[in-house]
This record gives sequence, structure tokens and C-alpha cells, in this order.
Amino acid sequence: MPAGGGAKARARQEAQRERILEAARACFSEGGFHGTGMSAIARAAGMSQGLIYRYFTNKAAIIRAITDEQREERREALAGIATCSELVDKLLEKIDAWRESGPREPCEGGFDAALFLEVSAEATRDADIAAVVTAQEPQIWTDFEDLVRRSAEAAGKPLDAATVRRRTVVMRCLVDGLILCYVRDPQQDREVLRHSLQEAITALCL
Amino acid sequence: MPAGGGAKARARQEAQRERILEAARACFSEGGFHGTGMSAIARAAGMSQGLIYRYFTNKAAIIRAITDEQREERREALAGIATCSELVDKLLEKIDAWRESGPREPCEGGFDAALFLEVSAEATRDADIAAVVTAQEPQIWTDFEDLVRRSAEAAGKPLDAATVRRRTVVMRCLVDGLILCYVRDPQQDREVLRHSLQEAITALCL
Repeated sequence: MPAGGGAKARARQEAQRERILEAARACFSEGGFHGTGMSAIARAAGMSQGLIYRYFTNKAAIIRAITDEQREERREALAGIATCSELVDKLLEKIDAWRESGPREPCEGGFDAALFLEVSAEATRDADIAAVVTAQEPQIWTDFEDLVRRSAEAAGKPLDAATVRRRTVVMRCLVDGLILCYVRDPQQDREVLRHSLQEAITALCL
Repeated sequence: MPAGGGAKARARQEAQRERILEAARACFSEGGFHGTGMSAIARAAGMSQGLIYRYFTNKAAIIRAITDEQREERREALAGIATCSELVDKLLEKIDAWRESGPREPCEGGFDAALFLEVSAEATRDADIAAVVTAQEPQIWTDFEDLVRRSAEAAGKPLDAATVRRRTVVMRCLVDGLILCYVRDPQQDREVLRHSLQEAITALCL
């Protein structure tokens, strides 16, 4: 973000920054993450490319800002969830809400399944995006580990750190896989999906 | 594919078709699935767009051909696997091989994690792609159900159809989630990943 100025200048800069992120989200939803360039984002924001570059050095910086916001929202959402079982229900609701909202629009809470999948794919090609994703992973692991630990304590079965980690791996795979499965096959029986995962979570003491 | 001709003409048409698919795979790997148009594929194949359209009516038809091939290869690969536990080991090997091969190139067996994620994302935007994905899902479910059934029988614990379905949902979520997790965080401890999933598979009698 450009340096300097008083409170008014800072507010204006913050508004400009938010305008760019809003335009970028719309472009990514419409044109896919890989297919969207800085010039398209500039056009959508009604700004010159030069001005955009004063706020974000490249597309990776934009995706860092967007996914940082999402990470923060997810952390808050996860903190309000008591058990792994509850997470599955909430996630299915999120995917339904996202689907109903467009799904070109990220739904309330910023959840955007398509962007999540595309950024993950792009990380295999683009070193800047890979750096963004890699930098965020430790926080994601911590958020999920906290939930798994809390969930086990709520069941009266506290776990040692290594077990928390292993169960968190399984929980993340289940949750990420649930997103993919439900996105690929929206017609499938939602209750079978829900019941299957809840059964697994019980069996795994998650 | 264009109609008519003798064996020689058919062989030539088959070669042309394969040339287009080869070019399309390279374009998708390089430029992302969403960002690649028919014109780019035509250029990469060294053909006119008009000729390409004689073989494939649109990008969805190309992705159908590519993912049909992958589905066939996956079916053959799954048929050679005895248990869910073995599948996790093989999948980690596939992801490693894919990563080492570029990862811009699909590795042996056609596995391309980035294309899988991007096509899934695109299915939320593009009705033609959604139709391709939806049409393939029943076969994918059948292949995975066969493995789960076989795996349970090998353990001397045959399952009824509803239980097979529920465990298959969990197995697919674990496997799809494993792909996403490992793609997002290639630096993570592969043995922790492997051990965590194997432990879950044992606990879930998969």
C-alpha cells in the first residue's frame, strides 16, 4: 500500500485496496484464477494498471490478501465450532450457501470452493503462488489442530501432540475431500455424504 | 471424429485426434484449463481451428476425451489394487511421480493433479464441463466401491451395499483430500501423511 498521509489519506487508500480486491474476486470467479491478468483486474476496478501496482506488486500479492482474509474468517469460524462432527455440518451448509449464491460469488464468510481448488492447482505451476500457499499452511494446520484437540477434550479423551497431528491430517483430508466430492457431484445424496462422514468421525474419535 | 474412409483414413484420423489431445494436455498444463482456448490448442497442434472442430465440438469435448482416458487408466490401476491401504501408498507414489515429472507434464498413467482440481472448479462455472464431470462420476463411484468391497472381503468382513457406499464416500474424501493436501503443502512430512491415513483406514475397517 502507498506510504504516508493522514487518517483521511489512509482511509482512502484502504478503500482503494478493498476496491481492487473486490474487482479481483469478481474476475477470478468469472474468468478463473489462472486466466485473469492484472490488466483485467484494473479494468474491472476502473483503475489504471499503474495505480494497482502501487497496492499490489503482482497477482500473487492479490491472492495473498484475499486468502489472508479468508484464513482469518475461517479461523474465527473454526474457533466457534466445538467438535469435528459440527464442522462437517457447517461445511456442508457453507458449500450449499456458496452454490446457491451463484456460485460465481463467494458466499458470506468468503468461502469460494472454486478459487480454493484453482489456487491449489496454480501453486504447482507458479512459484509466487506456491509461496503464498506454503506460507499459509502452518496457520491452517494450527487452526485444525486446535479443533481436533478441543473435540477430543470435549469427549473426555485428551490426546498427545503426535496423535493430534495424525488425526488432524485425517480430518483435513476428509474436509478437503468433502469439498471436492460435493463440488464434482452436486446431485449426490447430501444425507449419505453427511452420514458417512459423521460415522467416520465417530469411529476415528475425532 | 470425421466419418468415412478406409483403414488408412481411420488410422490418420486417430493420429490427428491424438495430436490434438496431446496439444491440449500441454496447453492445459502450461496455461491452466480455464485460460486455454480452442485457438491456443489449434496453434499448439499446428492445425487450423476449423480442422480441430471436425474432431471436437468444444473444449468440453476435449476434456471429456482426456478424462475418459484417465478414467480408463484409473480403472485399470484400481483393479490391480487389493486393499484401500495399498491405494494410499500407490497414490502417494503417483503424486510424487507427477511432481518429479514437471509437474507440468502428466506423469505415466495420465495422472495430473492440477488438471483434476481445475476441471472440478470449472464444473461450477461451465455447464458443459459440469455435464462431463457429472457423467463420469457414476463410474468413479463404481470403481471405488469395488475396491472397498474387495478390501473388506480380503479382511474376511464382507459388507452390505449401504455400508459399502458409506465407506466409499469416506474413502473418496480421504483420497481426494490427500491429493489436495499434498499438492498444497509438498514440504510436509510424507511419512506422517502416509501413517495418518493408514491408521484411519485400519480404524475404519477400509
